[in-house]
Amino acid sequence: MADLPLRPELAGQEPYGAPQLDVPHRLNVNENPYPPSPGLLAAIGRAAADPGLNRYPDREATALRTDLAAYLGHGLGPENVWAANGSNEVMTHLLQAFGGPGRTVLTFAPSYSMYPEYARNTYTRYLTAPRRPDFTVDADLVRAAVAEHHPDVLLLTSPNNPTGTSVSLDVVRLACEVAPGMVVVDEAYQEFARSGTPSALSLLAEHPRLVVTRTMSKAFAFAGGRLGYLAAAPAVVDACRIVRLPYHLSAVTQAVARVALAHAPELLSQVDALRRERDLLVDWLRDRGLAVADTDANFVLFGRFADRSAVWRGLLERGVLIRETGPDGWLRVSAGTPTEMAAFRTALVQVAEEMALPGWVPEQEGARA
Amino acid sequence: MADLPLRPELAGQEPYGAPQLDVPHRLNVNENPYPPSPGLLAAIGRAAADPGLNRYPDREATALRTDLAAYLGHGLGPENVWAANGSNEVMTHLLQAFGGPGRTVLTFAPSYSMYPEYARNTYTRYLTAPRRPDFTVDADLVRAAVAEHHPDVLLLTSPNNPTGTSVSLDVVRLACEVAPGMVVVDEAYQEFARSGTPSALSLLAEHPRLVVTRTMSKAFAFAGGRLGYLAAAPAVVDACRIVRLPYHLSAVTQAVARVALAHAPELLSQVDALRRERDLLVDWLRDRGLAVADTDANFVLFGRFADRSAVWRGLLERGVLIRETGPDGWLRVSAGTPTEMAAFRTALVQVAEEMALPGWVPEQEGARA
Repeated sequence: MADLPLRPELAGQEPYGAPQLDVPHRLNVNENPYPPSPGLLAAIGRAAADPGLNRYPDREATALRTDLAAYLGHGLGPENVWAANGSNEVMTHLLQAFGGPGRTVLTFAPSYSMYPEYARNTYTRYLTAPRRPDFTVDADLVRAAVAEHHPDVLLLTSPNNPTGTSVSLDVVRLACEVAPGMVVVDEAYQEFARSGTPSALSLLAEHPRLVVTRTMSKAFAFAGGRLGYLAAAPAVVDACRIVRLPYHLSAVTQAVARVALAHAPELLSQVDALRRERDLLVDWLRDRGLAVADTDANFVLFGRFADRSAVWRGLLERGVLIRETGPDGWLRVSAGTPTEMAAFRTALVQVAEEMALPGWVPEQEGARA
Repeated sequence: MADLPLRPELAGQEPYGAPQLDVPHRLNVNENPYPPSPGLLAAIGRAAADPGLNRYPDREATALRTDLAAYLGHGLGPENVWAANGSNEVMTHLLQAFGGPGRTVLTFAPSYSMYPEYARNTYTRYLTAPRRPDFTVDADLVRAAVAEHHPDVLLLTSPNNPTGTSVSLDVVRLACEVAPGMVVVDEAYQEFARSGTPSALSLLAEHPRLVVTRTMSKAFAFAGGRLGYLAAAPAVVDACRIVRLPYHLSAVTQAVARVALAHAPELLSQVDALRRERDLLVDWLRDRGLAVADTDANFVLFGRFADRSAVWRGLLERGVLIRETGPDGWLRVSAGTPTEMAAFRTALVQVAEEMALPGWVPEQEGARA
């Protein structure tokens, strides 16, 4: 590649992505472990077999956006919803419209490792302000960061990846009041939030510069379908329509996503089970003497390890793939099926004993009352 | 939208796209009019009903790229092929890697109306040099334009849209020798080229900065599936892998495109029929006294009309939708089924008579020997 006229800032970069390894237990990319039912698969097959495939798809994806709006509720209509190939593309459209050269996007670190990629691809300057030690973001932090950086786009992630931490509605409301530009709340994991954690969707009516992004990859168990979306004022959607390249959503993507939305109750029925496994895992890890971030997502950040890479490798050797991401010393594991969670716990116990992890509390001693 | 902090250069812009109108005869966006067969549809349905949809797709799309390489031949392997959601995204990846701020892309006008959009979205400066009056591009034009503009990316479209004009291999070879940066040959319509029109794929082995882009939208009758691709040296593919956002191709897109490729003989069997209709239409239009550009694509550029909008509207009123695009005074019509072509001819005769088009040769007088 050195002989090619590649943009200089890309030289030496690697393609983004977690290792794609074929192991028994994949708990590394926060997928939903429950595959589609035979009935849903049959409906997907029927929808994909579209006799109009030789024609271009609906550029506006109106039927899909109508279905997404109905799912979100809050009085939203298709004019409030934009959809694209994963939230990767949704975020790119937002930064193409409201970021770009000479503009900045600010978020609170640690946060999602894709954000710098969106900024890089759109030539938006990427800034971070630190979260509190418990990974929360509060009103004072937002006020101070906005005053210091005047971001064109303020990006709040709730629940946050990789920490699982939610941002309260009061903080989002404050952000909308003090931020000079757009406020984007990334709610990719919102469906997994603990009861009583409201969505920023409820603030859209008051705040024309607020955008809430979502994905079907997680709660909808539709990571393979690649469908991200946002809800906002119609003018925000119109801005995305200007920068999108036409026919960005294939006819098959639109049709199959609509089938998944029509099966929302079935797909979302696993969300409770995943929240339960997550909460059980948080308790178990804390009982083992580990630090665990409060989490409203379908994953758990735990630590701290003097050599997290060694822990990660030890788990992988036992067929359990988790993610080495986030602040140094921490690891992230996705909430899976009871079987996957048992495999993770068994492997971690073995790794802890083999490595003689300091502070580790063996299970019999830490048994709950 | 005026109240939003939209990038100033986007203010007042409209979403790109031809009118989406529901009319009997859609000959406006160079679609292949032949729908997939029942057997192909059944295979597509089976492929889309993927029990792994809850998991992220293969980021590298290796199986699909292997199939695309096999289709292209010329000794290419998956390491030579990159794929994305339509050639829109392929071109964007190329400009993100080799264009961008401070860099230029040069093409020969008139050409594809999406090119300025790719340049806009990647902040690449878009430059054009004029084609010859017959819309061809020859060695002298390339040499002069390269000497004047020193483009980072030289974009040759063969066959060209909207004119249908091919660029000879000698000219492509010269471009590779004199251009200082990347040379991209957009062969979206290559499968429709008249016999003896070779592909720039045959030059890839000699030219490491040459890229050939293709699409499954046209010859493969797969516009709804949104699958574009390119062939180039492995280092070019690696550059695209850096700028692509992960999982850009859904599992369904990958699976369904592979099914279409497996049915290539069936899908491509209509290409000859479309070329035949195109050539018959070129002759018929010339016999009517109209100017027609030589075409190797599945469309025909014809003119010149003092008021092309009136002709376009007259056809639309008769249920025939064509495209008002390209240089002033010209119109573009896609090659369709014999029935669609007959409807177009009937409508154009009526419009010509109604408008009393100067120079129009009625059919009985212009009948071929």
